[in-house]
Amino acid sequence: MKKEFVVIGLGRFGGSIVRELIEQGMDVMAIDKFEDKIDQFANIATHAVMADSTDESVLRSLGIRNFDHVIVAIGDDIQASILTTLMLKEIGVKKITVKAQNDYHEKVLRRIGADKVVHPERDMGKRIAHNIVSNNVLDYLELSDEHSIVEIVANDHLIGNTIIGLDIRAQYGINIVAIKRKDDIIVSPQATDEIQKEDILIVIGADTDINRFEKKVMQSS
Amino acid sequence: MKKEFVVIGLGRFGGSIVRELIEQGMDVMAIDKFEDKIDQFANIATHAVMADSTDESVLRSLGIRNFDHVIVAIGDDIQASILTTLMLKEIGVKKITVKAQNDYHEKVLRRIGADKVVHPERDMGKRIAHNIVSNNVLDYLELSDEHSIVEIVANDHLIGNTIIGLDIRAQYGINIVAIKRKDDIIVSPQATDEIQKEDILIVIGADTDINRFEKKVMQSS
Ligand SMILES: Nc1ncnc2c1ncn2[C@@H]1O[C@H](COP(=O)(O)OP(=O)(O)OP(=O)(O)O)[C@@H](O)[C@H]1O
Ligand SMILES: Nc1ncnc2c1ncn2[C@@H]1O[C@H](COP(=O)(O)OP(=O)(O)OP(=O)(O)O)[C@@H](O)[C@H]1O
Ligand SMILES: [Ca+2]
Ligand SMILES: [Ca+2]
Ligand SMILES: [Ca+2]
Ligand SMILES: [Ca+2]
Repeated sequence: MKKEFVVIGLGRFGGSIVRELIEQGMDVMAIDKFEDKIDQFANIATHAVMADSTDESVLRSLGIRNFDHVIVAIGDDIQASILTTLMLKEIGVKKITVKAQNDYHEKVLRRIGADKVVHPERDMGKRIAHNIVSNNVLDYLELSDEHSIVEIVANDHLIGNTIIGLDIRAQYGINIVAIKRKDDIIVSPQATDEIQKEDILIVIGADTDINRFEKKVMQSS
Repeated sequence: MKKEFVVIGLGRFGGSIVRELIEQGMDVMAIDKFEDKIDQFANIATHAVMADSTDESVLRSLGIRNFDHVIVAIGDDIQASILTTLMLKEIGVKKITVKAQNDYHEKVLRRIGADKVVHPERDMGKRIAHNIVSNNVLDYLELSDEHSIVEIVANDHLIGNTIIGLDIRAQYGINIVAIKRKDDIIVSPQATDEIQKEDILIVIGADTDINRFEKKVMQSS
């Protein structure tokens, strides 16, 4: 069953959502008030419609009500973002995700019934800062406030050692869930597997334990 | 050894980087050309300086050269972003990360020597679209073009079964690396562990295999 989405606002964030939803085989109606955006998405989205989303009659005439999920990706015009969300809610849209510009904006959006509120720039800033601090960490997934899965580049201190030899689990309380070696992913590596040059270790554990391990890895590089 | 960073441009993205770097214990000089931004970050950053980064004499007088890493988070003014990057490079800054607005912008930045170019809105759009498509998937980490680690909400079809009983590894070729249960993270769950209501499964595998598993999980919910 193909899901049907509406994306309102085709800036970098909204535009990227349209592309990815289409790539995943979804139906997407893309809406923007500027013609150049509509031209840009005419061949990408299932439908591209030039409309001002703060005009309720327009929203109704497009049959927005019948879509599964509407994403409001309007940026600088906070008033338009709030008004659009309010009307989508009144029309009876089942699921509404909205991009917020700040905490105050988020508060208003939640009060009027937005199901999900996202802060793309803020979240990505956090992510990138995290990756920047330690050069060995490539990417990560936060499992909870205290646990993460982290990609760590193996350095000279680790290369040539076996997993059991490094005694990582006992020494740091973390586990290597996989090793990225060139184009391969080695899931659940054996304790006797030797770490090679350019390996990327995918480790899981408490943030404090992972940090301790990162420090150790960095120190000696 | 405390690392020293400069962040130029205190919009949502740049501002979030400043906050996160400070939280991680780093030294951060925050620069913006608008006074209200400087007021906002005066008590957050190590130093907050009002300056136009396209003015080379200003950059030199601030001793930018001696910092470990400069992040250029200027948005709409692409010309200022490019000019700033060019001068940072000429001054001899070791590491420069720049936010790009589009592919053309990225191309120019790389040509003039930016070490890392990021597209926060685009990347987060992709991420959020991915999470939106399947309601059961909460978050994910791409390990390669073909492999990921994904957080999947357990549904009625899974609850009450043991991992060995579901035969997930043989049936789908994926592994459960952890289970998120309320505030706990159970790393490397036992084959005989029973999946409980509201469990979140952290699985690793090929995207095609994970998709197959997701479909199965969703179908029957
Ligand atoms: N009332 C409206 N109806 C339809 N589209 C709108 C409306 N208001 C704004 N938009 C569109 O929303 C898009 C995103 O807005 P804007 O460029 O302000 O956001 P942004 O946060 O700077 O974007 P980015 O995702 O690139 O960071 C623009 O293309 C704009 O034309
Ligand atoms: N030449 C410059 N020197 C210093 N700061 C600058 C310069 N040009 C722009 N800035 C600052 O960069 C910040 C970010 O720019 P802008 O708001 O255009 O980006 P944006 O991409 O919309 O931001 P966001 O991260 O919120 O999406 C602004 O606070 C702006 O004042
Ligand atoms: Ca903007
Ligand atoms: Ca933006
Ligand atoms: Ca954390
Ligand atoms: Ca992928």
